Amino acid sequence: MKRREFLAGSAASLIASVIDGKSSVFAKENGTQRNESPQAPSAAGRRQIAMLVYPGFAALDLVGPHQFVAGLMEADVHLVWKNKDAIATGPGNLSILPTATFEECPPDLDLLFVPGGLEGTIAVMRDEKVLSFLSERGARAKYVTSVCTGSLVLGAAGLLRGYRATSHWAFKDLLPLVDAIPAPGRVVEDRNRITGAGVTSGIDFGLTVSARMSGAEAAEMLQLLNEYDPDPPFDAGTPAKAGPQTTSQLRNLLAAGIANTRAAAMAAGKRLRSS
Amino acid sequence: MKRREFLAGSAASLIASVIDGKSSVFAKENGTQRNESPQAPSAAGRRQIAMLVYPGFAALDLVGPHQFVAGLMEADVHLVWKNKDAIATGPGNLSILPTATFEECPPDLDLLFVPGGLEGTIAVMRDEKVLSFLSERGARAKYVTSVCTGSLVLGAAGLLRGYRATSHWAFKDLLPLVDAIPAPGRVVEDRNRITGAGVTSGIDFGLTVSARMSGAEAAEMLQLLNEYDPDPPFDAGTPAKAGPQTTSQLRNLLAAGIANTRAAAMAAGKRLRSS
Repeated sequence: MKRREFLAGSAASLIASVIDGKSSVFAKENGTQRNESPQAPSAAGRRQIAMLVYPGFAALDLVGPHQFVAGLMEADVHLVWKNKDAIATGPGNLSILPTATFEECPPDLDLLFVPGGLEGTIAVMRDEKVLSFLSERGARAKYVTSVCTGSLVLGAAGLLRGYRATSHWAFKDLLPLVDAIPAPGRVVEDRNRITGAGVTSGIDFGLTVSARMSGAEAAEMLQLLNEYDPDPPFDAGTPAKAGPQTTSQLRNLLAAGIANTRAAAMAAGKRLRSS
Repeated sequence: MKRREFLAGSAASLIASVIDGKSSVFAKENGTQRNESPQAPSAAGRRQIAMLVYPGFAALDLVGPHQFVAGLMEADVHLVWKNKDAIATGPGNLSILPTATFEECPPDLDLLFVPGGLEGTIAVMRDEKVLSFLSERGARAKYVTSVCTGSLVLGAAGLLRGYRATSHWAFKDLLPLVDAIPAPGRVVEDRNRITGAGVTSGIDFGLTVSARMSGAEAAEMLQLLNEYDPDPPFDAGTPAKAGPQTTSQLRNLLAAGIANTRAAAMAAGKRLRSS
């Protein structure tokens, strides 16, 4: 009974779906089921979210945003790839399972999302099958989004031409190669494109997307649920803060990857402009 | 050649292993392989990291820290569970693959880590097989760590008795039930125990652990690599900042889960004190 009162607000009912989604025990203890939530949309009304996964993507690029968009809005989240074989992410032995093939992914999406990753990004930027999937779904999606070097994949698919966008700091200056306009900010919004900077920006990105899709009240409740009150023990999160020595060391270590990504972006841009 | 100069510093060589681990393309382009890194430890010298996974754990609780510890130190990361069947995490259709069973997990660990999660946490707090695995490995591990409600699982295994620790804000006051001492701070260190607050604290936790294991220079380079310069679009990440209305709504939605977790912690504490 008491719960019903608290669920009167739309933000609370959205969050309830997150918590119930996490925990059928919680739902049961309250005598409710997910589909009995006061404002639960009908099955047909569920939001459709597609997140691209691919070999070598950076797990945190995806899982940060995922925590904020998954379940928030009675959403169906699809982790999409060519097939459903387990996909190895970056280092550390972490593999995840795609849940839908390109063919199975719903045609009309509320949110299309692409994570970054080093070698993996380069490969998908050259992969016609991936690019045509993104291009087709992206043209119809309500929001077209990315974190980290995922913006270069969106760009290679022609989805950022004339849009302001961002990317990982070491790769951001490659955006013009796919006709995107590098813009300042940890999360950059231009019309229905929302792009985040490197890896951990996915948390700020996730909150931003939650607010756009479900309102600030829901986003704030998600922020509290996930206790997002950052307190980094060091202050080296940008080239300016890390200083020239650390930055040049890292740039050097990334040099070959940046060069390969540049080549892939150049090839993609050339194709876009000739088609 | 130039790369070798940059790799002279130990931080840079550690980070090189992250980047090479992410990208064999990068390694190849530089004419090196992972095991040719100037300061690469021998296979026998690789760090052994075990991260518990279990049905319903919160993916971001694990993947935040994972991004910072995986590959950092020529480490072998083991995602450990009873078996190797795919494990469904919280809401949003995200499943990951364990890489080692309890029996296969190395006996001597550099780092033992436990993520949180709602219903899932309650179940493992009552699971003798999980608790005896944690208790045995934790007694020998160099660092014993958790994020979010993972600290209550460590506590149920008897690993936090007399230690200062933290947990998700809504669950933190349950710590004394397993003889742990709630302490302020987003990341709490007491001797070799390192515990993080709710979900997103895993990033701050990951940086802290990286610094303890590989030095501040390596942690700062990882911070830059992952562009961790947080900029939340809202300021509602703690009960004090979110205010009483949002906090009480969320507490109410979590009430049944908190009650079930309390019961599990009480049972665990009773068992600890009688054994």
